[in-house]
Amino acid sequence: MQIVNFLLIGLGNLGRRFCEVLADKDPLLQSRYGLILRMVGAADSRGAAHDPAGLDPAKVAQLKQEGGTVADYPGAGRRGWPATDLVAAVQADLLLEASPVNLKQGAEPGLTCIRAALERGMHVVTPNKGPLVLAYRELHALAAAHGAQLRFDGSVAGGLPAVNIGQRDLRGAVIHRLEAVPNSSTGHVMDLLADGVSWEEALELCRQSGALEGDGSWDLEGWDCAAKLVILANSVLDYPARMEDVALTGVIALGVDELRAARERGECYRLLARAEREADGAYTLSAAPVPLPPDHPLGRLGYGQMGVVFSTDIYGVITAIIDEPDPVPSAATMLRDVLDIYS
Amino acid sequence: MQIVNFLLIGLGNLGRRFCEVLADKDPLLQSRYGLILRMVGAADSRGAAHDPAGLDPAKVAQLKQEGGTVADYPGAGRRGWPATDLVAAVQADLLLEASPVNLKQGAEPGLTCIRAALERGMHVVTPNKGPLVLAYRELHALAAAHGAQLRFDGSVAGGLPAVNIGQRDLRGAVIHRLEAVPNSSTGHVMDLLADGVSWEEALELCRQSGALEGDGSWDLEGWDCAAKLVILANSVLDYPARMEDVALTGVIALGVDELRAARERGECYRLLARAEREADGAYTLSAAPVPLPPDHPLGRLGYGQMGVVFSTDIYGVITAIIDEPDPVPSAATMLRDVLDIYS
Repeated sequence: MQIVNFLLIGLGNLGRRFCEVLADKDPLLQSRYGLILRMVGAADSRGAAHDPAGLDPAKVAQLKQEGGTVADYPGAGRRGWPATDLVAAVQADLLLEASPVNLKQGAEPGLTCIRAALERGMHVVTPNKGPLVLAYRELHALAAAHGAQLRFDGSVAGGLPAVNIGQRDLRGAVIHRLEAVPNSSTGHVMDLLADGVSWEEALELCRQSGALEGDGSWDLEGWDCAAKLVILANSVLDYPARMEDVALTGVIALGVDELRAARERGECYRLLARAEREADGAYTLSAAPVPLPPDHPLGRLGYGQMGVVFSTDIYGVITAIIDEPDPVPSAATMLRDVLDIYS
Repeated sequence: MQIVNFLLIGLGNLGRRFCEVLADKDPLLQSRYGLILRMVGAADSRGAAHDPAGLDPAKVAQLKQEGGTVADYPGAGRRGWPATDLVAAVQADLLLEASPVNLKQGAEPGLTCIRAALERGMHVVTPNKGPLVLAYRELHALAAAHGAQLRFDGSVAGGLPAVNIGQRDLRGAVIHRLEAVPNSSTGHVMDLLADGVSWEEALELCRQSGALEGDGSWDLEGWDCAAKLVILANSVLDYPARMEDVALTGVIALGVDELRAARERGECYRLLARAEREADGAYTLSAAPVPLPPDHPLGRLGYGQMGVVFSTDIYGVITAIIDEPDPVPSAATMLRDVLDIYS
């Protein structure tokens, strides 16, 4: 039996649900993979907890479910203890960094936590787009220099293994074109608008269901889509793209008339991330709402569905689609990445 | 620069095209992966060739393209030299076993070649279903015992990474249901029949395009579909299935009236491999022509398309589809597997 001591930073939608998945899967991880994943520390925005003998993931999830903080974990938590201090103070094998994306504040505290972990040779698994968008090359090099692995399959298109398929199954290929619908919230808003629902109502419905966070501008202005394209470009296309390289058009630029007209033509608008390979080997990157005909591989995505299409020279055209009715698959990507490292 | 010496057995549709892919990709393999793949031996049904300095893949492909045999390779080939003798005599790092599936004759010569290679610690990459169907567990154990890797992503659904996604990206999950359209030939025949083309014409068209080999019975009676399901069951579901565990109905059982009626309903027949998990954890396996409605994830597969759907507990429902207009992606799976071992 192999014991893996890990730290978990961020206990929102993804981190909390990861705790639930882990509590549920612990017996299977032991029997199928001979693996015990032991959470020796965890942090949220209000504080942290540390126990070398392991925090109970079910108890952590329950604290968060009830609106509390892991800082109140009995006998192990401390309010105001910053995530960065926890990572600096506690030695572990693995860091799971699931704090919310926060590009405006330099992707902190995620970026500092990830750097600190990699510098100590800890493996890092993160669905957090911020540090990857801002510092992909640096973090990649840092991991390599310290013999650590950096995995981030959950950063694009929820539970869809878009990064994995691109990185591992298209080896040796030239990718002529990459298209992705890497989030489901924007498509849901556009479908509601085409249904005749008002903008205000549509946003409210999406917020209630948890599909949109905050004021929704991160998704609706296209930043989420562009960030995911930047990650795919760096990791799958080996193309050193940054946010400013993406020609960006948000959903908010669309008129309801355009959405309805598309539906009448049998088409369906989706916020599409696209990378087109040019003759010189560079890629032209865009993120924009596009009316997709029904025979497009992503032209029939419904509620909660996301997808990616790789057009290649030697592997044909490969499409992958996920139907993800709740955030569990997005959270479970961390388990996928951890098992890829340790089994 | 790492040099990998390999043997290639079988120079039909897959083996010959792999030689073409390799000739084309050699510069990229060196620059991107620091890898030289050197073919030190090759065999077809008429003989073999061996050169420790490396056979030229373009020349081997040309010999086959012209209807010849690798046994006539100048200065290196010998007519009548069996593949099994080549593998026994020549030490290499890697065996690519791409001889045609041949279940009736005990999957020979593939099975003997694969056993011999694994016993010497050589890695094995094979798209040949025969040895996997007859001896999956034995070969898997043999590889593990000798520290060798056994890869076979090309054995199911051509260039689609169905095995890879199932084995690597669904780790930790329970797969409730697996559905696959793992070949494109049978769907093409059924589409032609529904178009009003006669059985004789449909078969002739498929033979001419290379979609069906021989008398077509391997595909049309459902054996190909069942064999691929057995491989998915063993490798992805960890369920020790054999051919006789699959409830099999071939395409030939279908009447043209059924095909036309389905089309009038907006449905599309496909030969569907299906595994359903029962309450006791066992799987019920079937391969049968099924009318798929357009909203089924595989309900709109066109010419040359194949796909797989995994319904899971923690990763949602993941669908992968390939559009494969020629056999190049099927052959290129060997490159994918080789790069997965060495890069």
